[in-house]
Amino acid sequence: MEDVADAIRRLAVRGAPAIGLAASYGLVVGVRAGDPSVPPLERFERAARLLQSTRPTAVNLRWAIELARSVAETSADGGAEATAAALLELAERLAERQRAADLRIAEIGAELVEPGDRVLTHCNTGPLATGGAGTAGGVIAAAWDAGHLGQVWVGETRPLLQGSRLTAWELGQAGIPFRLVTDASVGTLMARGLVDRVVVGADRIAANGDVANKIGTYSIAVLASRHGVPFYVAAPLSTIDPATATGAEIEIEERDPSEVTHVLGRAVAPDGAPAANFAFDVTPAELVTAIVTEAGLLHPPYETSIAEALRP
Amino acid sequence: MEDVADAIRRLAVRGAPAIGLAASYGLVVGVRAGDPSVPPLERFERAARLLQSTRPTAVNLRWAIELARSVAETSADGGAEATAAALLELAERLAERQRAADLRIAEIGAELVEPGDRVLTHCNTGPLATGGAGTAGGVIAAAWDAGHLGQVWVGETRPLLQGSRLTAWELGQAGIPFRLVTDASVGTLMARGLVDRVVVGADRIAANGDVANKIGTYSIAVLASRHGVPFYVAAPLSTIDPATATGAEIEIEERDPSEVTHVLGRAVAPDGAPAANFAFDVTPAELVTAIVTEAGLLHPPYETSIAEALRP
Repeated sequence: MEDVADAIRRLAVRGAPAIGLAASYGLVVGVRAGDPSVPPLERFERAARLLQSTRPTAVNLRWAIELARSVAETSADGGAEATAAALLELAERLAERQRAADLRIAEIGAELVEPGDRVLTHCNTGPLATGGAGTAGGVIAAAWDAGHLGQVWVGETRPLLQGSRLTAWELGQAGIPFRLVTDASVGTLMARGLVDRVVVGADRIAANGDVANKIGTYSIAVLASRHGVPFYVAAPLSTIDPATATGAEIEIEERDPSEVTHVLGRAVAPDGAPAANFAFDVTPAELVTAIVTEAGLLHPPYETSIAEALRP
Repeated sequence: MEDVADAIRRLAVRGAPAIGLAASYGLVVGVRAGDPSVPPLERFERAARLLQSTRPTAVNLRWAIELARSVAETSADGGAEATAAALLELAERLAERQRAADLRIAEIGAELVEPGDRVLTHCNTGPLATGGAGTAGGVIAAAWDAGHLGQVWVGETRPLLQGSRLTAWELGQAGIPFRLVTDASVGTLMARGLVDRVVVGADRIAANGDVANKIGTYSIAVLASRHGVPFYVAAPLSTIDPATATGAEIEIEERDPSEVTHVLGRAVAPDGAPAANFAFDVTPAELVTAIVTEAGLLHPPYETSIAEALRP
C-alpha cells in the first residue's frame, strides 16, 4: 500500500486518469494485504485515506475511491478475499472504460485538427498518463494517423519536465514530428503565427467548465485567446466533478520547492533560495473553446453542456 | 579578442548594457593586441565584425561599436597605441555613464513601487547585467532600500535559468526577500492577486516602444494586462534604437536547441529530441505601462516620448 501511495506522491504514476486507476488497484492491495485482524471494510478505509492524502487536485482519485467504496460495502460480507476480488474486477472495468473513453476522445478530437495544423500541448497526456491512448495525447496521435497533423509543439513543463521527459518520448516512439520549447516560448510562438490549435488535458473540470490542469495551462489559454487560437481540453467524464461548482473551489497542490530549485536532483539556484511550487492552475471556462469527452464535444455554456453529458 | 567574443557568445557576459561595455573594452583589446602588420583602423574593423557577430538582438552592442568607430577614426592617425588609448578612455566613459544611468533609473523606478508591493521580475537585470546597479534589478534594490518593497517574485527564466542562477544570488546577497517560481507560474500568481507590479529590463526598444527582452517577457506582459498589473520596463537610453521602427524589425536570436534539451549540461529529453530556442520575444508597446530611463519615465504614446528623450 505504501508503495502505491508513494508512487502517486512522487509522480511515478501521474496523469489524472492513471492516478485514478492506480488508486483502484491500490485499494485491492490495501484490502488483500492489510492487517488480517482488521475487518475488510476498515482495511479499505485505511487504504482509501492513505491514497486520498497523496494528491489533492486530480478528481479522478476521489472518484475512483468513491466507486470502490460502494463495491467494498456491498461485498464486505463475503470477507476480505471476496472484497478484494470485487475491487479488482472494478479496477479492471475502470481500466477498460478508460481505454474505451480514450479511443472515443481521440476519434472526436482528431476531427478538430485540420491538415497541416501545428498543435501545441503541455505536460504529458498520452498513454503514460491514462493507461489507454491518452487524452490530449490520444487526440494528437489520432490526428497524426488521420494525416491531419503538421507538427506538435511540446512545452517542456517545468518543474518536472513531463513535456521533455515523457511527451517527447511518446511522440518519438510514435514517429510524430514535434519540437520542444520552454514554457515561456508559447507567447512568441503564437505571436509568430506558429500555433494553430492548443490541446491539453485536465486534472479536474468544475461544473461551470473551469479547468484545473498542470501549471502553465492558464498562461497558454490567455495567450491563445489573445491570438485567436482555439484552446481545447481533452478529458474523460471522470475528470469532471459536478460537486465542484467553479475553479475557485479546486484545491491546488503546492509541491516541494526543491522541484523548482533543482533539476533532476541537481541545484540550479543558490543554497536555500526560497521558491513557490504550485503544481496546477485554473483556466476559466471563458477561455476554453470546447471540451473533448467520450460523450462528445462539450461547448459553452458549460453549465448546461456538462450537466447534460453527466446525466445518467 | 576571441576570448571576449566567446564570453559574449556563451553568455559569460550577458545583459544588454554589460554586453555593450564588454564590446567597448573588447575593441581596445582588438586594436592593442591585433596583428602589428595591420593598420589600427583595420584591426578595429576586424574586432568590430567579430563582436557584432556574437549576438544579434541587444542593440547596445551595435551602439557601443558605432561610438567606438567614431573614436577610432579620429585617433587612428596617432597609431595603434593612441587608438587603443582613446578606445579605452571611451570604454571607461561608457562604463561610468552606465553606472550613472543605473542610479538614476533605480531612483526614478523606485518611486513607482508602493509599500508592500510584490514585484515580479524575469531574467537577470542587476549588477551582473550592467556593471552598475542594474536596470530592473536596480529599481528593485532601490525600492527595497526605500522600504517600498514587500517581496520579489523571480521567474527562473528557462532555458539558462538566469533568474535562479543570477537574480536569486544577487537578491540573496542584498538581503531582499524573494521567491523563485517557474516561468509557467506567472499566470496563477497574478490570478491569485499575488503580483502588484512587473519590472523587467530590455535588450532593445524600438522607436514605437516595442520591447525585445528575454523570452517569456511577452507572456508576462499579456498576463499583466489581463490582470491590471502595471508592467514597467527599465532600460538605459542606449537600449532604445531609433533606427528600429517597430518590434517586427528586431532580429531575434535563435540559440542552440541543446539549451532546451539539457539543463547544466545534463539531458532532460530523449536523445535527439528536436527543440526550438528563441532567446527573446517582443512585447508590443501597448502592453507597456511606462519605460524607466535615466532621462525620466517615458509614457505612451512612445513614438513621441521616446523621440523627445533621445533628442540631443
